Amino acid sequence: MIDAISFNDSTLRYLDQRYLPLREEYVSTRNYQEAIEAIKTLAVRGAPLIGVAAAYTIILGINSFKGTKEEFPAFFTSLVAEVEASRPTAVNLFFAAARMKKVYAENFANDSLEALFAKMNAAALKIHDDEIANCDAMSRLGVDQIKIDLAHILKTRKLNVLTHCNTGTLACCGTGSALGVIRLAWQEGLIERVITSESRPLLQGLRLTAWELQQDGIPFVSISDSSSAFLMQRGMIDFGIVGADRIAANGDTANKIGTCAHAISAYHHNLPFYIAAPVSTIDITIPDGTHIPIEERSADELRTIFGTQVATPTTPVLNYAFDVTPGKFLRGIITDKKAVVGNYITELAALMEE
Amino acid sequence: MIDAISFNDSTLRYLDQRYLPLREEYVSTRNYQEAIEAIKTLAVRGAPLIGVAAAYTIILGINSFKGTKEEFPAFFTSLVAEVEASRPTAVNLFFAAARMKKVYAENFANDSLEALFAKMNAAALKIHDDEIANCDAMSRLGVDQIKIDLAHILKTRKLNVLTHCNTGTLACCGTGSALGVIRLAWQEGLIERVITSESRPLLQGLRLTAWELQQDGIPFVSISDSSSAFLMQRGMIDFGIVGADRIAANGDTANKIGTCAHAISAYHHNLPFYIAAPVSTIDITIPDGTHIPIEERSADELRTIFGTQVATPTTPVLNYAFDVTPGKFLRGIITDKKAVVGNYITELAALMEE
Repeated sequence: MIDAISFNDSTLRYLDQRYLPLREEYVSTRNYQEAIEAIKTLAVRGAPLIGVAAAYTIILGINSFKGTKEEFPAFFTSLVAEVEASRPTAVNLFFAAARMKKVYAENFANDSLEALFAKMNAAALKIHDDEIANCDAMSRLGVDQIKIDLAHILKTRKLNVLTHCNTGTLACCGTGSALGVIRLAWQEGLIERVITSESRPLLQGLRLTAWELQQDGIPFVSISDSSSAFLMQRGMIDFGIVGADRIAANGDTANKIGTCAHAISAYHHNLPFYIAAPVSTIDITIPDGTHIPIEERSADELRTIFGTQVATPTTPVLNYAFDVTPGKFLRGIITDKKAVVGNYITELAALMEE
Repeated sequence: MIDAISFNDSTLRYLDQRYLPLREEYVSTRNYQEAIEAIKTLAVRGAPLIGVAAAYTIILGINSFKGTKEEFPAFFTSLVAEVEASRPTAVNLFFAAARMKKVYAENFANDSLEALFAKMNAAALKIHDDEIANCDAMSRLGVDQIKIDLAHILKTRKLNVLTHCNTGTLACCGTGSALGVIRLAWQEGLIERVITSESRPLLQGLRLTAWELQQDGIPFVSISDSSSAFLMQRGMIDFGIVGADRIAANGDTANKIGTCAHAISAYHHNLPFYIAAPVSTIDITIPDGTHIPIEERSADELRTIFGTQVATPTTPVLNYAFDVTPGKFLRGIITDKKAVVGNYITELAALMEE
C-alpha cells in the first residue's frame, strides 16, 4: 500500500512525488520549514493531501516552540501565516489551518501549552482520518451517480473514463477523490479502461496516476492533454471525472490546468463530466470562480523537463497551475456528503449548513 | 535567414529540427533513404516542407539510378511508394509525389532519361518555389480576413493570437502558413502578442515557433497546450490560427494533435479560429474528416523527453500525432488562392477547379 503521508513520533514522513514513478523516495522531517518547502515544490501535492500536510506542518512548528505561554500567540499566528503562504489555490490548506486555529482559539485561555498541543495533535490526526473517510464516501456516491447517468451505456458495455492530473492515494490519503470513484467503479465491473491525460507541465497523470493504476492492475492508457477532444470525437471516452482545488458557491471549480478544456470538450460531445472533491474543497465565501486566486508557477516548469532543457532559458512562458471550469460544464460535483447534480448555488450552500 | 531546406549540386541540405532551439544542426545528404528517414523521424517536418522534402527525395532517388531506361519504370514506382510510405497524414507529400509522377508519365515515352531527370529536377524546384509564393499569398489573404473579422477590436487595441505547433519557415519554406499570416499581421501593426502552445509531445510550439518569433523580435509567450481554454476565458486570446496537414472536401481539417481542443474552446468563447494552408493541403477526394488516416506514433514520444525518461518504459500510451477539427468550428480556411469563409463544400470544390 502506498503511504503518501504519515505522522508518528513527532515526525512527518512523506513520499517525494517529484521522482515517481522512476524513484520511490521517502523523506522524514521534524523541521516545519522543510515541510513547507515540500508543499511549495510539489514534493507533496494534491488538494486534500496539502491540507493534511499543512496540519502536520503546524504540529511540527509548535513542537519547535521553546517560549512561554505569553509568547505563543504571536508565534502561532506567524507560523500559520507561513504555512498558509505556501500555496494559494487549494482551499483545503486554509480549511486545515482554520481547524487548527479553532482548536487554538477555543482552548488557549484555559489549557496549559502541553494540553493545548495534545489537542492540536489530535486535531491534525483527525483531519487526516477524515480525508480517508471522505474518499470512501465520495467513491460510493460517485459510483451510484455514474450508474444512473450512464445506465444506457452500461446495458451493453463497460465505460471508458477520462481523468486528469492525480487524485488518488497520492493526492488524498485514502483511495482518492476522482480516482477513488474510478477505483470503486472498476471493482464493481463498470470500467473498461481509464484514460489518464499526462497533465503538463509536471506530468502527474502520466507519472502518478499511471503508477497508481498500474499497482492496482486497472487497465489504462496515458495521452497528451490535448488529445482528449479527439478521443471524445472518436467515441473512446464515455465520461470524465477529476478532482478540485477550490469550488466556488456557484459550482465554478478550480483544478489542475487543462480541466476546463477537457470539460468544454466533454460538454460539446454530450459526455458527463464530474468533479469529485470533499466538502473541505468548497469555498462558500466566494460567489464564483473569478474570485479564486490562480497560482502562476515558474516558467522553468515548461522550459525544462526533469532537469533536461527543452526550450531556451529566455523563452517567455505563462504557466498557470490551475484553471477554472464554469459550473455549467459539470454534470455534477461528488462530495463526501452528497452527489450534487442540481442547482449548485442552493445545493452547495445547503451542504455547508449540515 | 533560416534555411530549413535547400537543394544544390544534387545535394539535399536540411536543418535537423529535432534539436532546435538548443542546437542548429544542418545535414547534407545525397542518399534518398537518409532523406526518407529524416521525414519519418521529424528531422524535417511541417506539411508543406514534407512535400518539398518528398520531391527532393525522389530526385535523390533517381540520381542514384544506374539501370537502363527499360528498368526505370519499376525503379521509379518503388521509389515513389517508399517516399509515400514515410508519413501518412500530410497530403502535401502525396501532392508532391503526384506532381513528380505526372512529369514522369507525360515525358517518359519520348524523353531520354537525362532529359526526363532534368524535367523532374525542375519540377521539384518548382514545388519549392510554389510553397514560398503560397506563403506570401496566404499571408495577404489572411491579414485581410482578420482585418474584417476583428475590426471591432482593432478599433481600440491590437490583437492577441493563439497558434499551435509550428507553421513558419521551418514548416513551409517561405514565411509560413499560419505563422506567415501572423508575421504579416505583426508587420502591419495588428498584433499585440502571439501565444504559442507548446504542442506535446514534440514541443514544436515551445521550441520551433518560439525560436522563429524570437529571431523576428515578435512578442510572444509559450503556454502548455491545455492552458488555451483558460486564457480564452480570461480574455487573453482574440483569435486562433493554425496550419493543416489535410483538409477534407467539407472543411474538416487534420492538424497537429490539440488543434481540435483549441478550436472547440475558441468556438465556445466566440473567437474566430482559422486554418491557413495552401491548396495542396486540400484533399477533395474525401468527403469528410473520418476518411483522413491519422498517424499513431511511438509511445516513447511521451514516455521520454529529449532522451530523459519521465514515465516507466511499460506505461501504456496512445499517441495520435494529429486530430480532426470539424469544419463547423472554423471561421475560415485561408488558402493561397482565396480566404474561404462560406460553405466549404462548394467553395473548396470551386478552388480545385480553377
